[in-house]
Amino acid sequence: MLLHNILPFAHMLLKNCVGEGGLVVDATAGKGNDTLLLAQCVGSGGRVWAFDIQAAALSATDKRLQQAGVRDRVTLVQASHADMADYVPEGISAAVFNFGYLPDGDKNITTCAESSVRAVACALNLLKTGGLLVAVLYRGHPQGCDEAAAVLDFACGLPQQGFQVLRYEFANRKNHPPFLLAIEKTAHDTIRLPESLTDKR
Amino acid sequence: MLLHNILPFAHMLLKNCVGEGGLVVDATAGKGNDTLLLAQCVGSGGRVWAFDIQAAALSATDKRLQQAGVRDRVTLVQASHADMADYVPEGISAAVFNFGYLPDGDKNITTCAESSVRAVACALNLLKTGGLLVAVLYRGHPQGCDEAAAVLDFACGLPQQGFQVLRYEFANRKNHPPFLLAIEKTAHDTIRLPESLTDKR
Repeated sequence: MLLHNILPFAHMLLKNCVGEGGLVVDATAGKGNDTLLLAQCVGSGGRVWAFDIQAAALSATDKRLQQAGVRDRVTLVQASHADMADYVPEGISAAVFNFGYLPDGDKNITTCAESSVRAVACALNLLKTGGLLVAVLYRGHPQGCDEAAAVLDFACGLPQQGFQVLRYEFANRKNHPPFLLAIEKTAHDTIRLPESLTDKR
Repeated sequence: MLLHNILPFAHMLLKNCVGEGGLVVDATAGKGNDTLLLAQCVGSGGRVWAFDIQAAALSATDKRLQQAGVRDRVTLVQASHADMADYVPEGISAAVFNFGYLPDGDKNITTCAESSVRAVACALNLLKTGGLLVAVLYRGHPQGCDEAAAVLDFACGLPQQGFQVLRYEFANRKNHPPFLLAIEKTAHDTIRLPESLTDKR
């Protein structure tokens, strides 16, 4: 196919953005697909922080990284990605969010709108100028629908002077297809959380 | 910038899709920007049909092509792009639509919703399998808003089995930014016009 699907397109953007020695975040480790890609991009001199609240996800990611021989350059963190600033320094090249539930895991455990918006804002603040955040949003389950709307609403309100927000979506697919947001930080800017979120932590 | 703007992204897709010897359509010649790109892509063995209803547009395009030494591979047609099937054979590799009014021209002369939908449907029927249609839609003027909505609505209804409809849009820009639709024909399929359009020609 000539037109890249959402995940291959996201991976192409990340490969263009993340170089050897880069510092990057996988905010949703899941089974480690994106963590592995990022670990390969940053090389032996870089570092990946991979977050998940589920031990099963980090265990699967750990195994995958070991098999690929890149475990040493990844820090696995069992915590909410909304708290990533407690673990990750400023100046990251990229952050990846693949929202929703763990494939083959408990479908009652999903990311949710409020902490997702908080985590995206936090990642944008950690990005260096020229850095990229990619987020794949799923609307096929009820929480996903609310979450996608909340993240999209937040992203659409980002100032044009500091951020380019690209929406990449296949528009004629049935059953609520996922879509991609790719946010490039084009100038130094600090994002404040929407007021409704600031007091709830 | 890491993320391509709409026009560079459209041009990248076209360069990947249109090869030497290809048959292609520029449905909105305007000042000949896209016509020139297409003429360069198809080489001396290919052919471009470029449509515009305004003589001034075709004259500007003619001059531009002559200066670039590629005039001989382009057929300029002063007619509505909704009638392109009267001029162009089946089996084209690509069709380009850059809707709206002629830059620096009479802003009262614009493409309009009904003929635009008809022309897009017509171009999709002329495309070969694996071919690509790209359309840049502007919502900054009243007719453009209606036209963008009508073309998007039509494209969203295209069958998933025969077409991939990508929407590529910067979501945080002010003042009704343009967006791109890229439609890849993945299987042979004949598009019927919506019923509301079939009797009005």
